[in-house]
Amino acid sequence: MALRLADLAVRFGCELRGDPDIEIQHVATLRHADAGAITFLANPHYRKYLTDSEASAVVLDPESADQCPVAALVTDNPYLLYAKITTLLYPQPVVAPGIQPGAVVADDAMVAESAHIGANAVVAAGVVIGEHVVIGPGCVVQENAQLGDHCRLVASVTLCHGVALGKRVLIHPGVVVGADGFGIAQDENGWTKVPQVGSVRIGDDVEIGANTSIDRGAIDDTVIEDGVKLDNQIQVAHNVRIGAHTAIAGCVAIAGSTEIGNRCMIGGGVGIVGHISIVDDVVITARTLVTHSIKKAGSYSGALPMDETSRWRKNSARLRQLDDLARRVIALERAINSNKNGNHDDD
Amino acid sequence: MALRLADLAVRFGCELRGDPDIEIQHVATLRHADAGAITFLANPHYRKYLTDSEASAVVLDPESADQCPVAALVTDNPYLLYAKITTLLYPQPVVAPGIQPGAVVADDAMVAESAHIGANAVVAAGVVIGEHVVIGPGCVVQENAQLGDHCRLVASVTLCHGVALGKRVLIHPGVVVGADGFGIAQDENGWTKVPQVGSVRIGDDVEIGANTSIDRGAIDDTVIEDGVKLDNQIQVAHNVRIGAHTAIAGCVAIAGSTEIGNRCMIGGGVGIVGHISIVDDVVITARTLVTHSIKKAGSYSGALPMDETSRWRKNSARLRQLDDLARRVIALERAINSNKNGNHDDD
Amino acid sequence: MALRLADLAVRFGCELRGDPDIEIQHVATLRHADAGAITFLANPHYRKYLTDSEASAVVLDPESADQCPVAALVTDNPYLLYAKITTLLYPQPVVAPGIQPGAVVADDAMVAESAHIGANAVVAAGVVIGEHVVIGPGCVVQENAQLGDHCRLVASVTLCHGVALGKRVLIHPGVVVGADGFGIAQDENGWTKVPQVGSVRIGDDVEIGANTSIDRGAIDDTVIEDGVKLDNQIQVAHNVRIGAHTAIAGCVAIAGSTEIGNRCMIGGGVGIVGHISIVDDVVITARTLVTHSIKKAGSYSGALPMDETSRWRKNSARLRQLDDLARRVIALERAINSNKNGNHDDD
Repeated sequence: MALRLADLAVRFGCELRGDPDIEIQHVATLRHADAGAITFLANPHYRKYLTDSEASAVVLDPESADQCPVAALVTDNPYLLYAKITTLLYPQPVVAPGIQPGAVVADDAMVAESAHIGANAVVAAGVVIGEHVVIGPGCVVQENAQLGDHCRLVASVTLCHGVALGKRVLIHPGVVVGADGFGIAQDENGWTKVPQVGSVRIGDDVEIGANTSIDRGAIDDTVIEDGVKLDNQIQVAHNVRIGAHTAIAGCVAIAGSTEIGNRCMIGGGVGIVGHISIVDDVVITARTLVTHSIKKAGSYSGALPMDETSRWRKNSARLRQLDDLARRVIALERAINSNKNGNHDDD
Repeated sequence: MALRLADLAVRFGCELRGDPDIEIQHVATLRHADAGAITFLANPHYRKYLTDSEASAVVLDPESADQCPVAALVTDNPYLLYAKITTLLYPQPVVAPGIQPGAVVADDAMVAESAHIGANAVVAAGVVIGEHVVIGPGCVVQENAQLGDHCRLVASVTLCHGVALGKRVLIHPGVVVGADGFGIAQDENGWTKVPQVGSVRIGDDVEIGANTSIDRGAIDDTVIEDGVKLDNQIQVAHNVRIGAHTAIAGCVAIAGSTEIGNRCMIGGGVGIVGHISIVDDVVITARTLVTHSIKKAGSYSGALPMDETSRWRKNSARLRQLDDLARRVIALERAINSNKNGNHDDD
Repeated sequence: MALRLADLAVRFGCELRGDPDIEIQHVATLRHADAGAITFLANPHYRKYLTDSEASAVVLDPESADQCPVAALVTDNPYLLYAKITTLLYPQPVVAPGIQPGAVVADDAMVAESAHIGANAVVAAGVVIGEHVVIGPGCVVQENAQLGDHCRLVASVTLCHGVALGKRVLIHPGVVVGADGFGIAQDENGWTKVPQVGSVRIGDDVEIGANTSIDRGAIDDTVIEDGVKLDNQIQVAHNVRIGAHTAIAGCVAIAGSTEIGNRCMIGGGVGIVGHISIVDDVVITARTLVTHSIKKAGSYSGALPMDETSRWRKNSARLRQLDDLARRVIALERAINSNKNGNHDDD
């Protein structure tokens, strides 16, 4: 596929600088772009590659546009425009409807005519699959799960019994939705399992990254609202609620019954303890441990920066004496003050 | 199913306050309970919802019972009693024995008549499967693995060759038991693989959460003892031993050859270095990095609480100067002491 | 299989102390070794078991050899020699070529005659599979993926479309290679997906542990170079590049577009932020958060050691006042200096 720059500018309502007849065939990074490529500049870290870029065109913001050595599409949100152009240039391959070899589909599953069930996938009794759904190869959809129109399970995804997906939910391989939450009650000998009788409800336009786990609710459902974006290897415990359009980076762990607001952005490796709530529009930087509810929008942190090992060892050993150190500073302050006062008294 | 309160009180030997003929149909949370629901109060965090609860009955402890506006089952361990009642109310669906469509079972696998092999599951040569075992859809059980009676692999579980499960082991989707441990020896050019010739032995009544990995031993077996409960996305390296009835929350990582005692409770995201040992009855709070052996029962911690990002940045930058700060405090103490002494000498 | 000590000494060019005719049947740990076993001593932590070892022979270094109560193979790198002997003693079972029951192989996939496609595996259109490749049971290989000779996917591995593996790549169950990276652009309502049009290229002799995820590139490919060894549950984001012979322990997370050099060693649970670069020969200790580029080979750290919970609470609370504490120390230093100076002026 080839797209004319002029057509892109018109379609997306952005300023074009340069030859309108340039044809774009593919995308590339600023650094590695060649003729026929469109690229973008959004992260200032990569501005150094702009002046030498051999792209046919660059998507960038007004401030950077002056330094652009080639044609430019100018917009306030270059990354978003790049995303839209890429979506045009690389249309999703159309997946033919039908049930592929080796797929096992229960007699009473309701599968839309336009849906695709991949090779060796399993669709259990009572499952409802909407229009244009793609169940990739090796997926398992257990009893009574529901998938709205245009959902896509890429491959090797497991949906446990009764979970419900909205429309256009995209789930990557290795994801498990609806496994039992970690519910155990201490008894005289050890632990008694607490049956997990809730389910999982996922809204529209949610994306879930590889090997992420979302547990079913203990009683009420675990809920992922519309437009939530989850990266890989995230752990979502039972009864968690994640508000609309919140984005969560890889390896985040959210403990049970915690509620997260709308439009939050949560960095990689963050941990969030259970039974707390976080308001809308909160940003949490990478690796923070969220130990209590957050009641005010804003940015929160808790990770220490690394250092050379030898220096780190000295400093981190001191941390174990920090309370003592603080007490000694207080004592010093008292000593100095009494000294001063003492001196004054002597005057 | 409906259960009379009086029958529950008799069956579980607890005090009943209120109408013994009340019928319970389902469970609910305190907050969302309606008529026909039984609920429980165990976490004081939720006591605020007690007085307005519309449940038919609440399971709670003697102190809270006086404030209960509806019928109550009174017990010292409300969460445990709730678990038992829920188990009664929501019996596990009976799974019919037999081999489902698409399952591939090796000729010489020994599969009990009462076992269920799910759609598109694979059971390899030499596998031994006990009575009433359920192998869910899409599971892979490799050569010579052994599963005791009443084990259940929910779906998409992988057991590698030769691993051995006791009775009533419950494994959730995405779990991998018996992959090679991370054994590599440095050579002149890079790394030489160290064959992992041990296996994994898992006791009775163990539960393993979604996407958890338990590696096979390098030489001796990796061992998970009876009654251990593992949450999701836990990493158990080769030759680890986890003692009976220890419970481990999500995203914990345990490095190779470490031994953990009985009845420990390990919080989410904890990391435990290799080649150490932890005695019985140790509690480790969330996100702690266990850097050395723990020889005394008790509670151990190591995670920092978050803060607002601006304040956090200032404080965490200071941590890199902490050793210097401590030295300066010592110098100040000396200066003040010599000052004082000096003054005395002058007298 | 049995091996004579003399033959091992000759084959691997190491010193033999003791009876050359001793026959070795199996490997064991120092602690649990019995007659017929060879064991090794590499970690000084286990030296205490040497003098009582009942092994037939021990692989160890010259310093330890004098204390060895039984026959010994003496070498400067005992762990490497142990690895080589174990590889001899436990040859990989030969896997017969052919397509197993339930496997679904696309008509136009190119599968070498010597390759093995396991039960219920899926090999999609356009896939190229080299000589002696083993695709284990339940694996999914999506469109146009390529696997070099002697690759082995143990079981339940998912390779997404177009990913390319070199030769002798070993991948453990639950691994996902080539899922979409986490590319989202903020729009007026929430998030727009950024198509991930790059792929994943993996070199020769790479090993990838259970449940690890390696995302496809957003534009350029994600690259794992020759000889890289990845443990379990590692997250490799889009466009990451990992240099040759780097070894990474479990649960490490590497954010997008970061480049890691050759021969690095990265400890368990390390987090590495995106868009940075790390030079060759860097060691990062467990749980460190790498917050900026590393330009000099060496060892880097950032994790705090645990403590008893009560003491930890006091110290970690003080951390939140650390900036204030530092300012107070500065004030004290000034007060004392001006005191001294004041005294001097008075003289």
